[in-house]
Amino acid sequence: MHQYKAPLRDTRFLIHEVLDFDTHYSKLPNGGEATRDVVDAIVEECGRFSEEVISPLYQSGDEEGCKLEDGKVTTPKGFKEAYNQFVEGGWPGLSHPEEFGGQGLPLSLGIIKAEMMGTANWAWAMYPGLSLGAMNTIMLHGNDEQKATYLSKLVSGEWMGTMCLTEPHCGTDLGQARTIAEPQENGTYKVNGTKIFISSGDHDLTENIVHVVLARLPGAPKGTRGISLFIIPKYKVNADGSCGDFNNVNCGSLEHKMGIKASSTAVLNFDGAEAYMIGPENKGLECMFTFMNTARIGTALQGIGSAELAYQGSTAYALDRRSMRSVSGKKEPDEVADRLIHHGDVRRMLLTQRVIAEGGRMMAYQAALLADHMVTGDEKAWAENDDKLGFLTPILKGFLTEMGCEAAYHGMQVFGGHGYIKEWGMEQIARDARISTLYEGTTGIQGLDLLGRKVLLGGRGKAVRDYGAEILGFCRQHNPVSGSAYKREMRPFVTELARLVVKWNWMTGRILLAARKDREIVASAHNDFLMFSGYVVMAYMWARQAAVALKKLDKGGDDTAEFYRTKVQLAEFYFERILPRQNAHAESMLKKPSTLMQISEENFVFE
Amino acid sequence: MHQYKAPLRDTRFLIHEVLDFDTHYSKLPNGGEATRDVVDAIVEECGRFSEEVISPLYQSGDEEGCKLEDGKVTTPKGFKEAYNQFVEGGWPGLSHPEEFGGQGLPLSLGIIKAEMMGTANWAWAMYPGLSLGAMNTIMLHGNDEQKATYLSKLVSGEWMGTMCLTEPHCGTDLGQARTIAEPQENGTYKVNGTKIFISSGDHDLTENIVHVVLARLPGAPKGTRGISLFIIPKYKVNADGSCGDFNNVNCGSLEHKMGIKASSTAVLNFDGAEAYMIGPENKGLECMFTFMNTARIGTALQGIGSAELAYQGSTAYALDRRSMRSVSGKKEPDEVADRLIHHGDVRRMLLTQRVIAEGGRMMAYQAALLADHMVTGDEKAWAENDDKLGFLTPILKGFLTEMGCEAAYHGMQVFGGHGYIKEWGMEQIARDARISTLYEGTTGIQGLDLLGRKVLLGGRGKAVRDYGAEILGFCRQHNPVSGSAYKREMRPFVTELARLVVKWNWMTGRILLAARKDREIVASAHNDFLMFSGYVVMAYMWARQAAVALKKLDKGGDDTAEFYRTKVQLAEFYFERILPRQNAHAESMLKKPSTLMQISEENFVFE
Repeated sequence: MHQYKAPLRDTRFLIHEVLDFDTHYSKLPNGGEATRDVVDAIVEECGRFSEEVISPLYQSGDEEGCKLEDGKVTTPKGFKEAYNQFVEGGWPGLSHPEEFGGQGLPLSLGIIKAEMMGTANWAWAMYPGLSLGAMNTIMLHGNDEQKATYLSKLVSGEWMGTMCLTEPHCGTDLGQARTIAEPQENGTYKVNGTKIFISSGDHDLTENIVHVVLARLPGAPKGTRGISLFIIPKYKVNADGSCGDFNNVNCGSLEHKMGIKASSTAVLNFDGAEAYMIGPENKGLECMFTFMNTARIGTALQGIGSAELAYQGSTAYALDRRSMRSVSGKKEPDEVADRLIHHGDVRRMLLTQRVIAEGGRMMAYQAALLADHMVTGDEKAWAENDDKLGFLTPILKGFLTEMGCEAAYHGMQVFGGHGYIKEWGMEQIARDARISTLYEGTTGIQGLDLLGRKVLLGGRGKAVRDYGAEILGFCRQHNPVSGSAYKREMRPFVTELARLVVKWNWMTGRILLAARKDREIVASAHNDFLMFSGYVVMAYMWARQAAVALKKLDKGGDDTAEFYRTKVQLAEFYFERILPRQNAHAESMLKKPSTLMQISEENFVFE
Repeated sequence: MHQYKAPLRDTRFLIHEVLDFDTHYSKLPNGGEATRDVVDAIVEECGRFSEEVISPLYQSGDEEGCKLEDGKVTTPKGFKEAYNQFVEGGWPGLSHPEEFGGQGLPLSLGIIKAEMMGTANWAWAMYPGLSLGAMNTIMLHGNDEQKATYLSKLVSGEWMGTMCLTEPHCGTDLGQARTIAEPQENGTYKVNGTKIFISSGDHDLTENIVHVVLARLPGAPKGTRGISLFIIPKYKVNADGSCGDFNNVNCGSLEHKMGIKASSTAVLNFDGAEAYMIGPENKGLECMFTFMNTARIGTALQGIGSAELAYQGSTAYALDRRSMRSVSGKKEPDEVADRLIHHGDVRRMLLTQRVIAEGGRMMAYQAALLADHMVTGDEKAWAENDDKLGFLTPILKGFLTEMGCEAAYHGMQVFGGHGYIKEWGMEQIARDARISTLYEGTTGIQGLDLLGRKVLLGGRGKAVRDYGAEILGFCRQHNPVSGSAYKREMRPFVTELARLVVKWNWMTGRILLAARKDREIVASAHNDFLMFSGYVVMAYMWARQAAVALKKLDKGGDDTAEFYRTKVQLAEFYFERILPRQNAHAESMLKKPSTLMQISEENFVFE
């Protein structure tokens, strides 16, 4: 199978040429260290680690999976050694404060790291990825003692953390959670309950595992207002910081999953485990939501990774495999057949994957710049960026994971029957990708968050108006007033973009009006609204990439003109072949909710 | 996990009320036996067999898979016993002539059988399904001795057959095949070569396996004109019809696949196997194409089956699982949360699966009626139906398998995280479904066949004009001239359908014109053309179902009014929520091919 290659050229193009990370970092309180040289070195080293250390474990990890024997979980061969290298390289605390042993670099560098490592081997990258959730919770809500005891060990990577939310009867709807935390006389709690779907819930990569667990106090209010958060280490921690007694956190079983088999997904039984409350009583869900956006962007990266890896694999195959002749005549007459790359329909599938990967990457990096402001402690910067990040987050998570699944689908399809065979590695990408639209809130939850909360409740469409205004500003800036090639070639992009912004606002208004009479439209429209929004945001990303590329081409003299010319051609492909899908979503979303709701539940089944 | 229930009500609705199989069978030379009572009894018994015998083996078959040990392949536990019951029930030869021991019933009944059994357990159903290919080849092209030796044993189910086409370096492009058949002095041939992806290539269900193998004679013309067909039994057949010596057909390995794991997919090495030519020298591919259409309809059934099974499973879950509250207020205030069925977005996913299953089923049955004429020996009937069947076949195979994968995707999605876990059975449906767009010609091949061969070459758009004329005839027949409720409710369907037929013809004309200047448009447009055509054909199916249902409702007095009302509501859902997708395909297909072709192959990878 194809081995992952870090897309360094595209990454550099985005962070230096399109998004100008340099200037952004120079204004961040914690951006001083992130000079261009440092950033380039980190990106390259991250690429090397991804290619050489974890990509080779991608297929073997899937074959082997995780095993639970005698209550102990073992990860696939090589995973622990790779993790040790990861720790030695100082990667776990890349974006965490120096006072806890981190490198104190901006969050956005952590996102680039997560993207590369996740693309090379998503199941492996989930272990350190999930640990970030526990780290962030303790950093933001833990008391000094908790930070001293747990945070430094997590930041160094010596221990890992998890988030334990879901229970057998409730996933999204955490208000139904039943796990109970009984207060003890010494100020600790005894927790009893079962948590499921706990990623990295048990494993052999670190000596201890720090669980952040959502549970109820006895007599707590029903629903989400009665939920508190607790730290529960797998092994209690001695006064000297070493691991002590086993804390009655038992791995009941590991799930048998469609994919990400090398990631341990545990059923955890807390059988009277000693627990320490973190954050205020009954405010557990609010504490969790403080970093929900960054967690969801982390999941959105899986969509980009699926698309990138599928693109790399299927492109290598299409450049090699021969089948049939091009419809416009033999392209390689001396060969027994033309290579797949000469077939228009194969190119359609390849380019679809590529525009998802490269357009999605910029969507994530754009959001990462906003996220950089969320952890600096600057409240003004926080407030300025929180709304926009909150608006973009469900679009990224919902749209990019759906698109990632689609890309993985095309990647298999390019291989024909071989795509279905494990040894080629393409079906694994599709299986691994498939979780991304399900966890961290399904696509439905993202759509509801976007349309119901962020767009309608949050300012009656203001989020769309604000983001649309940014896009229109871009359009004005690149409007063809002179006759330069750059301006001429930008025209179709800005014309279409401006038209879509108007349409987006108009549809938002229509839904607002309709919702006054029938709230059901929020449920019946949110999937189409999410996808429509995604296509528009990605169009904006491609127009911006095209603008930078066209300017470079206009200036001339660059020895990588082919790269820029290709970027423009990819933007054309996106606008001409992918963007038309917005029409279907726009048409469907304004249909009356009764098409969904009028069928009575008895009539869903006739025998 | 959910157990399959045969959709008897829908099947009866389609065959009796919408498509009037009775009248159709009464005009068929081999339709006399297929009275309404007989048909109903067969459908019911087939449903019972599917539900009780093979559905219970669905999940266990996937877990166990096929095994190759010491050169012998074993199928999962229970497969052989189920097959024996299948043979005892007389199912293998349901639609094959009585002179060879079959039941002589119309082909369309075999398609209903294949759909039900395939939905209950596709991997199991592939064994007898693939055998049909060998049976049809021998029936149509074998000499009397070959028929006497092999056909009766295949029809009875005592032996099974395969089709051996693909080689490691060529799948679709069979002209590249290298397997060699050396003529021997006794009139037989010695075959050497390797075939891959041979479904049912080796197994323990029957004593002997009859391979139909595509190979070249020494010195045969290059490409597809030098291909002949051969019968190669796994064991040579003695004069008394019993199995004799092993014939050097060795199973080299079994493929490790994403799904359909209970179906044995073999690498077969023919190591000097004794072979008997079937059909004329160098005309092997033409012999194969005589039943390509029916084979491809057989694969299209997998799309319907995936949608039906996913719909059944996810509906059962949505009617049971509680999560969150409806956006329009609590629907079950006394419960901890509302059931999923109350959420509009969940209904969108459920209904999408259902309209694919029930609309697709009618597409297949409609084609089955045409196929009935292909095997009766009536040349006039053959000629009349061949063009239309040839036009519909790539639409069925291409569109319905793509839609089946989409449906399986939604089925998982309704389950949230549980959809990703094996025990619930939903991810298996998605894995199994995924092969359907790859084998028997990928979706790309279907699109090329449809647009390139059937539409453009075959009469410059005549196929679209003819089928469009049929639809317009339907629209005229159901045009609102009176004020009856039936007519009023039909109006939106016929209006939209008529508009789409005009659009379909117009686009076909545009592509015809564009192809004069640039043949590439055939490659760049065929996927969109295929999908557009599929959406229109399915719309026609739903309008026809709605018309029948509305008439019944208009007449009143029926005790299954709920069934008919639901059919109308499903048609509305399809027209309002699914059909708008045709816009995206229509817009994209007319874009210039250069958006796909202008990127030079070197620019597919930058490092």
